[in-house]
Amino acid sequence: MKKVGIIMGSDSDAPIIKKAVTVLQELEIPFETHVYSAHRTPDAVRKFVASAEKNGFGVMIAAAGMAAHLAGVVASFTVLPVIGIPCESGSFKGLDALLATVQMPTGIPVATVAVNGGANAAILAAQILAVDDAELSERLQKKRKKDSAKVLDKDKNVNALLGL
Amino acid sequence: MKKVGIIMGSDSDAPIIKKAVTVLQELEIPFETHVYSAHRTPDAVRKFVASAEKNGFGVMIAAAGMAAHLAGVVASFTVLPVIGIPCESGSFKGLDALLATVQMPTGIPVATVAVNGGANAAILAAQILAVDDAELSERLQKKRKKDSAKVLDKDKNVNALLGL
Amino acid sequence: MKKVGIIMGSDSDAPIIKKAVTVLQELEIPFETHVYSAHRTPDAVRKFVASAEKNGFGVMIAAAGMAAHLAGVVASFTVLPVIGIPCESGSFKGLDALLATVQMPTGIPVATVAVNGGANAAILAAQILAVDDAELSERLQKKRKKDSAKVLDKDKNVNALLGL
Amino acid sequence: MKKVGIIMGSDSDAPIIKKAVTVLQELEIPFETHVYSAHRTPDAVRKFVASAEKNGFGVMIAAAGMAAHLAGVVASFTVLPVIGIPCESGSFKGLDALLATVQMPTGIPVATVAVNGGANAAILAAQILAVDDAELSERLQKKRKKDSAKVLDKDKNVNALLGL
Amino acid sequence: MKKVGIIMGSDSDAPIIKKAVTVLQELEIPFETHVYSAHRTPDAVRKFVASAEKNGFGVMIAAAGMAAHLAGVVASFTVLPVIGIPCESGSFKGLDALLATVQMPTGIPVATVAVNGGANAAILAAQILAVDDAELSERLQKKRKKDSAKVLDKDKNVNALLGL
Amino acid sequence: MKKVGIIMGSDSDAPIIKKAVTVLQELEIPFETHVYSAHRTPDAVRKFVASAEKNGFGVMIAAAGMAAHLAGVVASFTVLPVIGIPCESGSFKGLDALLATVQMPTGIPVATVAVNGGANAAILAAQILAVDDAELSERLQKKRKKDSAKVLDKDKNVNALLGL
Amino acid sequence: MKKVGIIMGSDSDAPIIKKAVTVLQELEIPFETHVYSAHRTPDAVRKFVASAEKNGFGVMIAAAGMAAHLAGVVASFTVLPVIGIPCESGSFKGLDALLATVQMPTGIPVATVAVNGGANAAILAAQILAVDDAELSERLQKKRKKDSAKVLDKDKNVNALLGL
Amino acid sequence: MKKVGIIMGSDSDAPIIKKAVTVLQELEIPFETHVYSAHRTPDAVRKFVASAEKNGFGVMIAAAGMAAHLAGVVASFTVLPVIGIPCESGSFKGLDALLATVQMPTGIPVATVAVNGGANAAILAAQILAVDDAELSERLQKKRKKDSAKVLDKDKNVNALLGL
Repeated sequence: MKKVGIIMGSDSDAPIIKKAVTVLQELEIPFETHVYSAHRTPDAVRKFVASAEKNGFGVMIAAAGMAAHLAGVVASFTVLPVIGIPCESGSFKGLDALLATVQMPTGIPVATVAVNGGANAAILAAQILAVDDAELSERLQKKRKKDSAKVLDKDKNVNALLGL
Repeated sequence: MKKVGIIMGSDSDAPIIKKAVTVLQELEIPFETHVYSAHRTPDAVRKFVASAEKNGFGVMIAAAGMAAHLAGVVASFTVLPVIGIPCESGSFKGLDALLATVQMPTGIPVATVAVNGGANAAILAAQILAVDDAELSERLQKKRKKDSAKVLDKDKNVNALLGL
Repeated sequence: MKKVGIIMGSDSDAPIIKKAVTVLQELEIPFETHVYSAHRTPDAVRKFVASAEKNGFGVMIAAAGMAAHLAGVVASFTVLPVIGIPCESGSFKGLDALLATVQMPTGIPVATVAVNGGANAAILAAQILAVDDAELSERLQKKRKKDSAKVLDKDKNVNALLGL
Repeated sequence: MKKVGIIMGSDSDAPIIKKAVTVLQELEIPFETHVYSAHRTPDAVRKFVASAEKNGFGVMIAAAGMAAHLAGVVASFTVLPVIGIPCESGSFKGLDALLATVQMPTGIPVATVAVNGGANAAILAAQILAVDDAELSERLQKKRKKDSAKVLDKDKNVNALLGL
Repeated sequence: MKKVGIIMGSDSDAPIIKKAVTVLQELEIPFETHVYSAHRTPDAVRKFVASAEKNGFGVMIAAAGMAAHLAGVVASFTVLPVIGIPCESGSFKGLDALLATVQMPTGIPVATVAVNGGANAAILAAQILAVDDAELSERLQKKRKKDSAKVLDKDKNVNALLGL
Repeated sequence: MKKVGIIMGSDSDAPIIKKAVTVLQELEIPFETHVYSAHRTPDAVRKFVASAEKNGFGVMIAAAGMAAHLAGVVASFTVLPVIGIPCESGSFKGLDALLATVQMPTGIPVATVAVNGGANAAILAAQILAVDDAELSERLQKKRKKDSAKVLDKDKNVNALLGL
Repeated sequence: MKKVGIIMGSDSDAPIIKKAVTVLQELEIPFETHVYSAHRTPDAVRKFVASAEKNGFGVMIAAAGMAAHLAGVVASFTVLPVIGIPCESGSFKGLDALLATVQMPTGIPVATVAVNGGANAAILAAQILAVDDAELSERLQKKRKKDSAKVLDKDKNVNALLGL
Repeated sequence: MKKVGIIMGSDSDAPIIKKAVTVLQELEIPFETHVYSAHRTPDAVRKFVASAEKNGFGVMIAAAGMAAHLAGVVASFTVLPVIGIPCESGSFKGLDALLATVQMPTGIPVATVAVNGGANAAILAAQILAVDDAELSERLQKKRKKDSAKVLDKDKNVNALLGL
């Protein structure tokens, strides 16, 4: 199976990436993580991303906050699908990161998930890899059913939840 | 090759979808388009999406404006990757559509592109299908180079552009 | 009297719904609550809502946060009036939920109340049921007068309140 | 059947109210319209609203722009359900009107629809009156089906729509 | 000297009003405070405001949060200058209150100060009363000089402040 | 009667100031207008404002767009009441001007009116001058009644307005 | 004198850059302009910027819209001061470009000017070059005086401007 | 070497300025700091800034919150480059300060950095002074490399960081 390449722009984004990693482990998807800054280590980003396809990566995930250029910079060096996670950081609660990640110019899309959406970035990566992998698709469907069952369990206990 | 399923929530979104369709044709990717509203035709959405995987679709694209629920509703019926295009419509210039598309709860990601980003939605769909399709990946790389060359052409004429 | 059907999208919205439930109890209005997610349990939502009218429900209340599709999805399955409560959750403090709830397309309105407005959702539901129920209307008027009296009591103690 | 009372805060809101009136006529619901400003004619608002219930009104609709106090002021004089239409006007494109309409304090809800949502305000009013009126409920269901059919018609012509 | 009439929409706004009261006491300006809600006690607001001019009031101050209609409603009942204090409350941190206070329609201005700007509301009230009161004007100028001196004192200690 | 001093930051704000001037003429209030920029002509602003009180001015009005510092700078040179008009200009539709005008620090209030609110700035100036001028107060009350009558006239013609 | 290096991310930004170029010509400052996209031509950006200092450039200006990464990417390749111009483009009127340009992480500042602020970017570049160039400083002071005089000329004609 | 002049609008901004001061010390750049308010001490600001150039200053830094006029006022008195730091303060989390700092009119630019960006303001000041100072440029390059190395160190420990 192709690997998921994950880059966080700062170690302060680690809790968000941890959520992604946990999902990938649960779905048995191989991955590799890095701390690379688009601005402080542009060469490291470029080197890792430009060779990602031939090194066996199938999807890239990039997480960054504030003027979050990382996902866009990653996308400029590869035609692999790039998933961007805008991280809540600083004064604007992730609105800056969301706009800086999603509003990409024509030709260089970034598949943006919700602010701090580490788990969903991993699920989206899995969905992408599952397009040609029926087994992984089934694991995703099982996970979906489990999530659904959890909600219905809560529904059964709704009166207790509300102190009724 | 797997097909791209495209749903627009209203025929007013057709110019955005037209941009997606043009890119898919250029990249020789099969697709099927529909006008289905998440709220006015929930059954049609469900029926089309729930059987999409077994009908040969590999990726879904959904475009909608205002309280843009379409992409999220599509994502609730499939584990295929779902790309959401927030459309500018009404008073808030697409901010409502962006937030309603990207801020999905854990478990059900929508790969969101820029407001009105029809072309990028198609490129992202192509990138997803190209993960296991080396020829398509090459077509994407050629397109990227052509885009790059266009910029450099403009750079050659920059003085004329500025009347210098 | 017709019942109020209440759905929360996640058990994290329970404190908001608790405020609604308390008001309904105070006004002696029958209700039924559920935890159903628009995205994780679309079938449960549909089943409950599509048969709500014939099961004796007169009004629906739906509470959800972030890309809050729940109220709109509920409204797509019934012509009963649907009240939406946008819940504050995640980075955008309920602005995403407000826009995703209120900006509904023509044909499928959602009666939206303030962010976290659980009590007001219940009062609005009561006002709707009171249109043809003079006794309930009177209970609402009494409640209004009690609220008014509370404010005037505070006014009497305003100097103490300000340490004057 | 009870009447719908409609107040617009300024004659510049007439095109929005016209959409509401058209829906009410289509659904054969009696109504009465007024131009009353919350700030310029507070007495007229109060007089009309305070006696609305005993004058045969079942629902109120109020439309206003900018610091849109009208719906809230209407709601302060009645326990009838009050529907607020925030109108796009001035520099902030209706965001001011939306927040001033929807963010009501506990005890005095306003059922807020989308910015400029005249048609949806009327449909919501109809849904409220239909809670105890099976015939009106049926008319609403027919209208819903007609709307749904219109979307599916557009879907049939989607290829022409896209020039395919 | 004419009095300043102060209304807060809720006792939760008392800390903001306390700042206004402290300034008025310091400037020896008579005042009277009330807790009146625009929506829960519209009659009390109207009664107090409509007779304010003949009861010796020269300026009104109104403080409210969320859909802050209070200052506008006060302004609709008097031609005295009305100062509005938008209060931070609920999810939108006072943005709703600011827009609902400042974006008044032509004919009914509200002199709006910063969110939570209790002290400035009082200073503005004093400036208004000082237009025809040279002594009060002098007290305001003294206060201004004291404020200025405080800043310059801090400037003298800036190195200590910065640990230099 | 004391004069109203009016400064616009740029001649592009003239249409807004024209609305203020028309109201002042209608109310027979003397005024003087200037084009002074807070940034391009700081000395002219300072000179005019610092001597305004002794030159017979009772209120200042300042109108500016974008990073609208003018009203605040005016307020820093006088204890006269200063009314700020945020002007819509540039990309942010007056939101920048509103925040830059209203969010003044403690000690230096600016009485802010709505974006582009030229007429209301003049009415507010008149209300301030009327605190100690019973005749002007009466003229304001007459104007208010005329405005009210205009609304009620429109109300009489509401059916024609709506094509009913 | 050191040169100003100017990069626009797209030829649609040319009108903004034209304003910068006009100012630089007026101040007799040498410059060189390019059309380079951060995402479509990352190598061209890097090559030009990384050698800018040794090629005689003293300041860089970068203009881009939407998810405006260009200025930040330029800044990641040089320690020369980098001026960013956020361009109004697409649905969010430059707010996305502003946040993506100004909210840079610690270590890599971008000197951000107003949205579409082409002329100010050039003036800022001149101010930077003038720190060690007394003649250029004088030219800037002359320009400032000319701007000031233009405002005062308009002030002389203010009555005509207002039709008084 | 020319000095950096630093003004904070309030002593509450000291922690932000402390970050600037630390960077300047690290880069061995002389500086002088002041607490001066644009509104409370306009004369002190003017006096310090108007003579800054001849007193050996090469760059000015101004930090302020809310309606942050300080940087613009500083820029109105000098043609030295002025760096503005918008400070997070009050209800709007620095958005007001950002817009009030960056949206300057043509002719008077402010080089704006991120909200609370004290360190980056100092680095930008250093970059400006380094345009004609090869040694300082080298110190900046060393600092950049150190920052880069820190990121790569974190990258080496990324698995520990994620508990892998």
